[in-house]
Amino acid sequence: LPRFDRMAAGGPLFIDVTWHPAGDPGSDKETSSMIIANTAVNFCGLETILHMTCCNQTKDDITGHLQKAKRLGLKNIMALRGDPVGEEWEEEVDGFNYAVDLVKHIRNEFDDYFDICVAGYPTGHPEAESYEADLRHLKEKVFAGADFIITQLFFRSETFLKFMKDCQAIGITCPIIPGIFPIQGYHSLRQLVKLSKLEVPQEIKDVIEPIKDNDAAIRNYGVELAVSMCRELLDSGVVHGLHFYTLNREVATIEVLKRLGIWNEDPRRPLPWAVSAHPKRRVEDVRPIFWASRPKSYIYRTQEWDDFPNGRWGNSSSPAFGELKDYYLFYLKSKSPREELLKMWGEELTGEESVFEVFTCYITGEPNKNGYKVTCMPWNDDPLATETNLLKEQLEKVNRRGILTINSQPNINGKPSTDPIVGWGPSGGYVFQKAYLEFFTSSEIVTALLRVLKRYELRVNYHIVNVKGQNITNAPDLQPNAVTWGIFPGREIIQPTVVDPVSFLSWKDEAFALWIEQWAKLYEEESPSRMIIQYIHDNYYLVNLVDNDFPLENCLWQVVEDTFELLN
Amino acid sequence: LPRFDRMAAGGPLFIDVTWHPAGDPGSDKETSSMIIANTAVNFCGLETILHMTCCNQTKDDITGHLQKAKRLGLKNIMALRGDPVGEEWEEEVDGFNYAVDLVKHIRNEFDDYFDICVAGYPTGHPEAESYEADLRHLKEKVFAGADFIITQLFFRSETFLKFMKDCQAIGITCPIIPGIFPIQGYHSLRQLVKLSKLEVPQEIKDVIEPIKDNDAAIRNYGVELAVSMCRELLDSGVVHGLHFYTLNREVATIEVLKRLGIWNEDPRRPLPWAVSAHPKRRVEDVRPIFWASRPKSYIYRTQEWDDFPNGRWGNSSSPAFGELKDYYLFYLKSKSPREELLKMWGEELTGEESVFEVFTCYITGEPNKNGYKVTCMPWNDDPLATETNLLKEQLEKVNRRGILTINSQPNINGKPSTDPIVGWGPSGGYVFQKAYLEFFTSSEIVTALLRVLKRYELRVNYHIVNVKGQNITNAPDLQPNAVTWGIFPGREIIQPTVVDPVSFLSWKDEAFALWIEQWAKLYEEESPSRMIIQYIHDNYYLVNLVDNDFPLENCLWQVVEDTFELLN
Repeated sequence: LPRFDRMAAGGPLFIDVTWHPAGDPGSDKETSSMIIANTAVNFCGLETILHMTCCNQTKDDITGHLQKAKRLGLKNIMALRGDPVGEEWEEEVDGFNYAVDLVKHIRNEFDDYFDICVAGYPTGHPEAESYEADLRHLKEKVFAGADFIITQLFFRSETFLKFMKDCQAIGITCPIIPGIFPIQGYHSLRQLVKLSKLEVPQEIKDVIEPIKDNDAAIRNYGVELAVSMCRELLDSGVVHGLHFYTLNREVATIEVLKRLGIWNEDPRRPLPWAVSAHPKRRVEDVRPIFWASRPKSYIYRTQEWDDFPNGRWGNSSSPAFGELKDYYLFYLKSKSPREELLKMWGEELTGEESVFEVFTCYITGEPNKNGYKVTCMPWNDDPLATETNLLKEQLEKVNRRGILTINSQPNINGKPSTDPIVGWGPSGGYVFQKAYLEFFTSSEIVTALLRVLKRYELRVNYHIVNVKGQNITNAPDLQPNAVTWGIFPGREIIQPTVVDPVSFLSWKDEAFALWIEQWAKLYEEESPSRMIIQYIHDNYYLVNLVDNDFPLENCLWQVVEDTFELLN
Repeated sequence: LPRFDRMAAGGPLFIDVTWHPAGDPGSDKETSSMIIANTAVNFCGLETILHMTCCNQTKDDITGHLQKAKRLGLKNIMALRGDPVGEEWEEEVDGFNYAVDLVKHIRNEFDDYFDICVAGYPTGHPEAESYEADLRHLKEKVFAGADFIITQLFFRSETFLKFMKDCQAIGITCPIIPGIFPIQGYHSLRQLVKLSKLEVPQEIKDVIEPIKDNDAAIRNYGVELAVSMCRELLDSGVVHGLHFYTLNREVATIEVLKRLGIWNEDPRRPLPWAVSAHPKRRVEDVRPIFWASRPKSYIYRTQEWDDFPNGRWGNSSSPAFGELKDYYLFYLKSKSPREELLKMWGEELTGEESVFEVFTCYITGEPNKNGYKVTCMPWNDDPLATETNLLKEQLEKVNRRGILTINSQPNINGKPSTDPIVGWGPSGGYVFQKAYLEFFTSSEIVTALLRVLKRYELRVNYHIVNVKGQNITNAPDLQPNAVTWGIFPGREIIQPTVVDPVSFLSWKDEAFALWIEQWAKLYEEESPSRMIIQYIHDNYYLVNLVDNDFPLENCLWQVVEDTFELLN
């Protein structure tokens, strides 16, 4: 995910996800090609081309993969034959033997839904009878319905330009995108050459051999070479896009793009949360704040929606969030192994205070008393967001006393949309936030809090709910409260996050369930540690507070301070 | 209209509009009952009960009136018999003879669409055989489908309370609203008594007769009497609403309500523009800024829409505004007579400068060179808005030099929603605006302006169009630009006015047509004055400018200043 984000920062047209027949590519495993592409599209907002090979697979398998890809919102397929199982290629009688069969199959079964890409070989496919025969195969693939071509890597710009001319000469008119491979090291180059059966030109070998043990030198040379080749291609006037073989390492590619001056360095986010590239979600620009640290869960629980809110959340009397029970199966499980979680969250809890301690360590980033840092929590997969860091000092103070915070944002009264921490959206705009604080706390503190909140009645909106769903709120007519919004030149107001009283009840189920599923179940049944978490789950309240007076100093800390004062 | 607004300020449940059979009440005349009710509902946002009498009318006439009322968005009908034509009541064989016939007819033909109100007579209808017989008639009306009762006026609270008890005794359970008549003068009382055949109690006569020539004393007494009667009614616990016979004069009624402490003094507007009470328009909360001074025209031109925008205007590629040609017939005509307009706008124009002079006088409020104040313009029915007054000095300067302004607003960076001048919406919120300026100007000035605007490219959005529709803009993708918005406790963002590039082209037709229809046509054909206006119509551009940087000082004056500098 962080690598996707680093690659996405340059604003690529698309990324490719390769298809590994041996790795169960169409499955629901976290590492399958299908799920990686799904992550890129839905969670990182990257336009993605999913590779798909067809040899050694039945039509039904292929159709199943394609249906799944469509369901996940993938729009682009790179149709490939795939590598032979043994050394030699054997034709199957009833199966797919060539990429062209796959192209035809996709067009037959899915009409124009998918954009189809096919591979071109600037020096001819190594198994082809001849360069000319290979060009004819390429033409067949295009005429069968492919929309564009990405080429195999090559080492000289002339190779590509000649290939392109030859394609045009036999009537291939679709876009052809050159495949660029910045050499990143001696061994990776050798391996690639072996696989692709390409020949490295002598002038390159001459440079590389003498420096083969100096990785940095080879990479510098590789970048240099790629830059000059790309310049020649772009200057030719016939190349309108570049495709990079990154081998999952982005450093060299980013370096090349920067030197070419086409790395679109724009650290700003279009919205405060990661936008999904799923076609159905294109217009989505409002979400409840509750899932801010669990976007995958939000996307999962709303995937069946036909329309996604834009402009306003609206007064949805019952937004149909996916049932929590399905959800358990996929995303409630933490990524870290049990032993690691126990080190972070405590091998043995001695009381509610030891839970307070875990929350406090997560906020401060300091090691716990056994010397382990708490880098995630059941409600937060990642360490504290930069923005939340602004509130660190106050958060530490209140967590120590049993206000167990799981989500918060500071108030912001019109910072530039280009602000490196809180900015989002097009430049020239202004972003705003209302202060938000969400936490679990005991019923004793809630009783005091409610008395204090009376004094802030017109200023602070609150929702307080326990696991049984007893709900206390002063929200007018259960209307959503916009807590993040932006004003931009020549646009309507954008309000990407709201506190929606109705959705809060769906979130509540998830937030309470995480105590048990992720934390309590680390311990033996009937053990004191497990009973402590169970007690919190059964008796604590989930509270959210919004300070509506965004131009004034955030009053929520004062509310909490007043509550503690009342208790003493 | 101003009276409606003064009455509306108290937040009444509804207002009544009486039905005058002699005044062509169902017609499209400005003063017909139907059109007055239409104005109250659609332009003033007042819930309105339209009275309707049925005697001496055919079923088809009645059905036609009701269909029209439904089309205009009226929801409430007071079903009345009406007064006899001669002295004596004559039954018609095939027509409607009683209010109950009208109630049945409405329920038959319109199902539950209308709320129906009927009249109750606390001392019995003067023509009824007896008090008891009249109660039975009332029960018939209720059982035929009436939803509630408003009573004839009365002078003692006991009269009403007894009547209410008697109604309940015979099974009338719907709400009964007492009709209160604050005595406002000796003569109006006498006339009303004569019409209603009511008897004024001796104790009231005793007070009034001696002071019959002292209007103020009688009004004070009338208010006093009404207040104590209303108190008794409200204290009884069975009265939950009051209906006032105002005879179109609001002063006494407002005084009574204030003394009772139920005058809901809230000067704030729910939105910056007057909200319509038409059921179809209930959710509407976004409009283009162009029609700000011509809301009737906007409502008229959008009346056929099935949905009204709320939350966002959206990227309406072609909002279907009503054709201008229909529109001419109704609202393009100015309210003032020709002679008055000539005095304001000039009996004889000597050049473009004399037009500049008219615009300047309208802005400053100073009399023109013939000593007449310019209180309206073709684009503005009313004198300058309070808010626009904030810009008066700059507006005067630019109009004098040929930037002929027709719409503008200052920038506002978060004033309280309770601000007496620019505030709107619920309390506890903050309102914002981007500076806006709209004007006609010569092509010479436009040429210079466009050069200046290059320096403000990222800050100022502009649309510049001439009568032929040549359109110059830097709006991104023809998206609307929100120029007024508000942030409120516990709500989503509200953005009631936008600059919509697409609607601007519909407004352009109207704005240019007003030069000819309202101004040029005041003069003889071929006269120099007429030709001057025609020249402006044919050659000037309509320009709008938005300064997107609302937290900074409005730069639009600097843009205009720079333009004049460039010209010199």
